[in-house]
Amino acid sequence: MKELKEKILQEGEAVSTTVLKVDSFLNHQIDPAFMKRIGNEFAKRFSNERITKILTIESSGISPAVMTGLALDVPVVFARKRKSLTLMKDLYIAKVYSYTKQEMSEIAISQHFLHKNDDVLLIDDFLAHGQALRGLIDIVDQAGASLVGAGIVIEKGFQAGGDNLRSENYRVESLAIIDSLEDGNIQLR
Amino acid sequence: MKELKEKILQEGEAVSTTVLKVDSFLNHQIDPAFMKRIGNEFAKRFSNERITKILTIESSGISPAVMTGLALDVPVVFARKRKSLTLMKDLYIAKVYSYTKQEMSEIAISQHFLHKNDDVLLIDDFLAHGQALRGLIDIVDQAGASLVGAGIVIEKGFQAGGDNLRSENYRVESLAIIDSLEDGNIQLR
Repeated sequence: MKELKEKILQEGEAVSTTVLKVDSFLNHQIDPAFMKRIGNEFAKRFSNERITKILTIESSGISPAVMTGLALDVPVVFARKRKSLTLMKDLYIAKVYSYTKQEMSEIAISQHFLHKNDDVLLIDDFLAHGQALRGLIDIVDQAGASLVGAGIVIEKGFQAGGDNLRSENYRVESLAIIDSLEDGNIQLR
Repeated sequence: MKELKEKILQEGEAVSTTVLKVDSFLNHQIDPAFMKRIGNEFAKRFSNERITKILTIESSGISPAVMTGLALDVPVVFARKRKSLTLMKDLYIAKVYSYTKQEMSEIAISQHFLHKNDDVLLIDDFLAHGQALRGLIDIVDQAGASLVGAGIVIEKGFQAGGDNLRSENYRVESLAIIDSLEDGNIQLR
């Protein structure tokens, strides 16, 4: 997506060789009209699929997910992220390791909002090692629902998450792929 | 807002005399088209004001804020919520006490995305004791920005946050006000 790639180059900051800061339009400040175009792009890419529900994870996944849901006219459910959720009931729970924060957390989705007849599209802001997507896939499996694929705003192509998922025949659509953040330079594919 | 009030009565659950669960359309699952109508309603109510920025708090505030931003064509910034953020720099930080969780946390907004010439509309999912709004107002003050008012999806009218803010001449627009959750019954104003 050309507009996204331009925004990454203009406003993104390679904080380290693995961390890209895009606080100005994705992770802290949001341009709603731009986010709507991102949602439209995901809807276009998955227009040949039957989709009944979109899953994402709080917080930065919510905006692109809701705009995709608006374009596809389907509900969005955002997983809650907590240190430990195991004491609550009626939840699908998956463990997610964050390499950025170097900690394990749990994500959860209420069993009331995901069913075995759902066709699920996953939407998230970033894909790096793929831990968050794996957690959402785990939850889709627990519900016995069908997975359509995943729409990612920015994929870190130099980390293995996306390629591993594709090699397992998951459909992963990334609107921009970063090949390198070496020496403070953002290299796009 | 009639549609919202009907949804609260149909899908809401008075979990206790103070807690209303609206996971099916606001705090966990989101109907994007309905959320867009909520954003349009806020935009209409504040249409006589100059607004350059919308502030909210992750996570449930993001959807209504982004849809309001879409209607008004202004950027949205969502405050991050953490146990402690004080070690990071370039942040406006405010303390927020959560009565629900009975814990103090900090919310933060980057100084890069809020300036003294901004006219700020606050958007949030719930207003109860007003702690979250007070935190956002504190941040608006720190930035030297101007506060236009606050748009709230659901106000707990039996708690004092909204009335206290109005008595201090803050403009608070709530799309639905709950008068009581006694005996498991949701009483709307």
